[in-house]
Amino acid sequence: MKILIINPNSDPAMTAAIQKTAETFAAGDFEVITEATPGAPPFIETYEDAARAAPGMADLVRLHECDCDAIVVACHCDPNLDLMKEITSKPVVGIGEASMKLATMLGHRFSVISVADRSIPNKEALVRAYHLEGSLASVRATNAGSGAWGAEAPYLEAARKALQEDMAEVIVLGCAGATGLDRALQAALHVPVLDGVICALIIASGLARYGVATSKARRYCPK
Amino acid sequence: MKILIINPNSDPAMTAAIQKTAETFAAGDFEVITEATPGAPPFIETYEDAARAAPGMADLVRLHECDCDAIVVACHCDPNLDLMKEITSKPVVGIGEASMKLATMLGHRFSVISVADRSIPNKEALVRAYHLEGSLASVRATNAGSGAWGAEAPYLEAARKALQEDMAEVIVLGCAGATGLDRALQAALHVPVLDGVICALIIASGLARYGVATSKARRYCPK
Amino acid sequence: MKILIINPNSDPAMTAAIQKTAETFAAGDFEVITEATPGAPPFIETYEDAARAAPGMADLVRLHECDCDAIVVACHCDPNLDLMKEITSKPVVGIGEASMKLATMLGHRFSVISVADRSIPNKEALVRAYHLEGSLASVRATNAGSGAWGAEAPYLEAARKALQEDMAEVIVLGCAGATGLDRALQAALHVPVLDGVICALIIASGLARYGVATSKARRYCPK
Amino acid sequence: MKILIINPNSDPAMTAAIQKTAETFAAGDFEVITEATPGAPPFIETYEDAARAAPGMADLVRLHECDCDAIVVACHCDPNLDLMKEITSKPVVGIGEASMKLATMLGHRFSVISVADRSIPNKEALVRAYHLEGSLASVRATNAGSGAWGAEAPYLEAARKALQEDMAEVIVLGCAGATGLDRALQAALHVPVLDGVICALIIASGLARYGVATSKARRYCPK
Amino acid sequence: MKILIINPNSDPAMTAAIQKTAETFAAGDFEVITEATPGAPPFIETYEDAARAAPGMADLVRLHECDCDAIVVACHCDPNLDLMKEITSKPVVGIGEASMKLATMLGHRFSVISVADRSIPNKEALVRAYHLEGSLASVRATNAGSGAWGAEAPYLEAARKALQEDMAEVIVLGCAGATGLDRALQAALHVPVLDGVICALIIASGLARYGVATSKARRYCPK
Amino acid sequence: MKILIINPNSDPAMTAAIQKTAETFAAGDFEVITEATPGAPPFIETYEDAARAAPGMADLVRLHECDCDAIVVACHCDPNLDLMKEITSKPVVGIGEASMKLATMLGHRFSVISVADRSIPNKEALVRAYHLEGSLASVRATNAGSGAWGAEAPYLEAARKALQEDMAEVIVLGCAGATGLDRALQAALHVPVLDGVICALIIASGLARYGVATSKARRYCPK
Repeated sequence: MKILIINPNSDPAMTAAIQKTAETFAAGDFEVITEATPGAPPFIETYEDAARAAPGMADLVRLHECDCDAIVVACHCDPNLDLMKEITSKPVVGIGEASMKLATMLGHRFSVISVADRSIPNKEALVRAYHLEGSLASVRATNAGSGAWGAEAPYLEAARKALQEDMAEVIVLGCAGATGLDRALQAALHVPVLDGVICALIIASGLARYGVATSKARRYCPK
Repeated sequence: MKILIINPNSDPAMTAAIQKTAETFAAGDFEVITEATPGAPPFIETYEDAARAAPGMADLVRLHECDCDAIVVACHCDPNLDLMKEITSKPVVGIGEASMKLATMLGHRFSVISVADRSIPNKEALVRAYHLEGSLASVRATNAGSGAWGAEAPYLEAARKALQEDMAEVIVLGCAGATGLDRALQAALHVPVLDGVICALIIASGLARYGVATSKARRYCPK
Repeated sequence: MKILIINPNSDPAMTAAIQKTAETFAAGDFEVITEATPGAPPFIETYEDAARAAPGMADLVRLHECDCDAIVVACHCDPNLDLMKEITSKPVVGIGEASMKLATMLGHRFSVISVADRSIPNKEALVRAYHLEGSLASVRATNAGSGAWGAEAPYLEAARKALQEDMAEVIVLGCAGATGLDRALQAALHVPVLDGVICALIIASGLARYGVATSKARRYCPK
Repeated sequence: MKILIINPNSDPAMTAAIQKTAETFAAGDFEVITEATPGAPPFIETYEDAARAAPGMADLVRLHECDCDAIVVACHCDPNLDLMKEITSKPVVGIGEASMKLATMLGHRFSVISVADRSIPNKEALVRAYHLEGSLASVRATNAGSGAWGAEAPYLEAARKALQEDMAEVIVLGCAGATGLDRALQAALHVPVLDGVICALIIASGLARYGVATSKARRYCPK
Repeated sequence: MKILIINPNSDPAMTAAIQKTAETFAAGDFEVITEATPGAPPFIETYEDAARAAPGMADLVRLHECDCDAIVVACHCDPNLDLMKEITSKPVVGIGEASMKLATMLGHRFSVISVADRSIPNKEALVRAYHLEGSLASVRATNAGSGAWGAEAPYLEAARKALQEDMAEVIVLGCAGATGLDRALQAALHVPVLDGVICALIIASGLARYGVATSKARRYCPK
Repeated sequence: MKILIINPNSDPAMTAAIQKTAETFAAGDFEVITEATPGAPPFIETYEDAARAAPGMADLVRLHECDCDAIVVACHCDPNLDLMKEITSKPVVGIGEASMKLATMLGHRFSVISVADRSIPNKEALVRAYHLEGSLASVRATNAGSGAWGAEAPYLEAARKALQEDMAEVIVLGCAGATGLDRALQAALHVPVLDGVICALIIASGLARYGVATSKARRYCPK
């Protein structure tokens, strides 16, 4: 089994971090290959960033879909996920969708720890699109700056507030760039801390093993 | 006052029909200019169609924003509307959003008459994004084929069923291509029948006159 | 075009303030006439105030409907709005409904700034009746007293808290008496600040120009 | 204990029918007195009917509140119920609210059987105001005409459809005029069939015995 | 009339306190008998506590249903209430359901004062199961320890915060053990403070008098 | 890795069918062991059936938790799932929860095909508890009788109606007894047809591999 992981941005360091997390989780039982998106901006923050990533993401799907079994979109705002589900017959899993839906199976409510205040409304809109408002404790931002997406301390502080003030029981890392922080945070917080890349690999590898993919009945039917 | 109407597809006939409706409504009190989107497909049906329209739509905004007072996006699925709201300081109004929100002011529930069954889930997702589920009676499709987007009879039949079987009180035309059918349908049905282009012009011209535009607080703030 | 604005209370100062805002917005392009409600209390705070305003409001509608093109109800709690929509074939727009629904087109969430704590539950009930809970950031009260409905400072303070603490992106002035404060507040806050009177005029004049009015299918059908 | 039952309309026959049901249920354990509303129309169908009933209903409350222990509003659309709750310190119970909330304790979903199609949207709006959408199976109308509000057959037919087609498990009689039909319908349908007058008496007499009434914290605080 | 009150735990002191409250309310007009549950834990806090109480509760129902007219389940988390409704043809009322639904008839929003933080999510899940989220101001915990379930001061402090900070208008005592505190709290707080035992008796005695019980249409039909 | 599958009923044939499906999916990559529940009824239909299964299910968890890595509850009504999550530190996955949440990632709306009409309300209550109402197209019953839980034709007919009349895009098999039907149904229907046992194994094995389990913060914390 081979899983294609699309990093919707073009940052090589984040691509490498995602690949490292994925390889560690796969542990040789299945193949993972992470691709940065050609033509995409180095970080996906705005609607325009997402739109700019779309053509390269579609190209990656079409280039690789014949020799992969499932596709993961590895940006926590799930940019262009509907498009990805539409254009391929392989299962497609977003790390935002996978991590937040798994979170609902592990505790009463979850909080998402995002990078910046400005992303909170967009995350709330995503939560609504997935019908998850009722399971959301809060979206909190570290506001540590996009350059510091891998730093542990701001995530720890925001997560503690989510657990104590917002009644969260599960923490979701709200940026692919936070990949790798889950273990240390979980050890400190004593609740599940979910890395979206791993959550998406759980679902994607499971669907591929099962042999089911996106329904083409109506919503995701290409022309 | 001048309002730019972006037709997200590239079809000249639909562009002309939209312009005609807009000019008739404006009646010389404000200027309207409808532009087809360069590089877009001739009809927007799929997520890929919408993604393909995005670069040309952004180009149109940037080309015209200095000399227009408001922008209308004239496809009823409101493709790339969040992107449009983000990249300009001028007010931006989608014909889907405007027509469905005005419909809630005119009766208990509204039905949207769409072109094809396959678009129903997407319209439902849009309705949810706008928090309008509670005001929706139904989405019904004419299934008359995308080539027949200007024919009256299939709309009339679907609208009658919406009024009688789904308890709709207001009808929303769910395709920019249906522009111009509102008068005849309203005369036959005796309830408000809303053309999205006109609804969007009402809001867009009003906001321009008022001097307010999209909040740049967080969600629609460009980088 | 002529628009009748019903001030549901009987206060001449507030009536004059509403008329001034309306005239400024209309700028001679359409006629506006604001009428205080005979027999109504000087300020609408309670359910009993609203009930006491009903007969006079209905009288105003019947007196003026033949020579006006649309009707605006200019109290932000939209008293007797369903009744107004039922008894006339002209379009009827409440300043609460218009301002809150326009707010949803201008940003992720809006806050309403009301006069008194006691009005917060009633405003929440109105927000629910309009299916707007999902777009509401908060209702905050200035608690400056009903006599001080035109003072700017308490609105500014409450709005700042709404933007910073409640994640609002748009501010709605929750009392017709606050009419005229929008410009100064918007200049200070850098987000849209909506005056309900103007919002209702946008919709009412647009519907009148379009030639559509309340559906008489069922909910608003008079006997 | 004495309970005032306000019939919001002025029809003596319906007033007598309500009184009869109430007396039978009270069985001498508490006193009931049903008053028709002076100045109200003979049947409450429209928003205007409800507005016309308001002054007389308020007068009845003020006339009787000193010598009664609780007040029931006996029209299933609960006209002016917020006003009634506001103006008196005695507990006030609407037959719509009481019957629909008790119904949620007796089965998975309930259906309301109303008199006419035109009342369905208003009943839905009431259901929403009470946060009961999730427990509602359907609102069905007998369409037997307002003159035939006491006939059994149309209720039976509509209720059967609600049970079989809409998955209702409890039937709520949606008009005070249907009082007295509950026993026969329940015998035929083998599910609970709720008469609003009795449901309201259960709650009103219980609250009076308990000694609690409407909170005057904010929403229902008179000036 | 005779009402069986099942205390789902096995604590004799709490059983006696419940019986005392019930007898005082019944005032000799109907008979009440409170039974502790054989085999149940002394306090119901966890899902396992609830499961352990189920067999004894079912036994109590079967032992007493022939000679009682209605059954009350007197633990505010309503443990095994669906089971109770299923296995008997007598009306069954939970004190959680009864108190929270009555609260919605007495003010805009209610707060539940629970014993411990750990019970807040479970109470929220119960509130959701009853479709009451929209009427809930907050769940607050006294955190006074399960041994101190009858102490007044922590309830008073939590209730004051609920009224002032969460905009509650009605207080619901969230533990059967708090029975008897309602009068003193209501005198201090000047809003309705609801004891679940009394609320359930209001509904249970009313349903018994009316002669209606749980629908056996589908959800609560035994095999 | 070893996964314990608890069949909440005591039927050996269904236990064997579940084990067969699980073994086929695991394909030797992880160990699966399905245990029937001692003391449970042969089929779980009622709330009493579920209550009767609870002690045996808890015993199975405690007997096996030391030598298994995750636990699956293999009845589609997820009986006693909250209890299971509370009493063990191993991840616990219900086949109802897993299949319905995976379904939301594969299409716009899903339908559940259940065994009997009487189970529809209970399934709807489960869907609500999981916040999945917005993704549900319908619950349909085969009504083929509980003895015929493995027959294909009634599932096919109900699923076709769900796809055509209810706009479902994904089918969820609503009974563990239907295990093994997914392939044939999927081949006939051309949309994803989900077997809950496999869906739960995907999640359970993934969580075990990841090393995360139920949060013990509050809701699922044992005493």
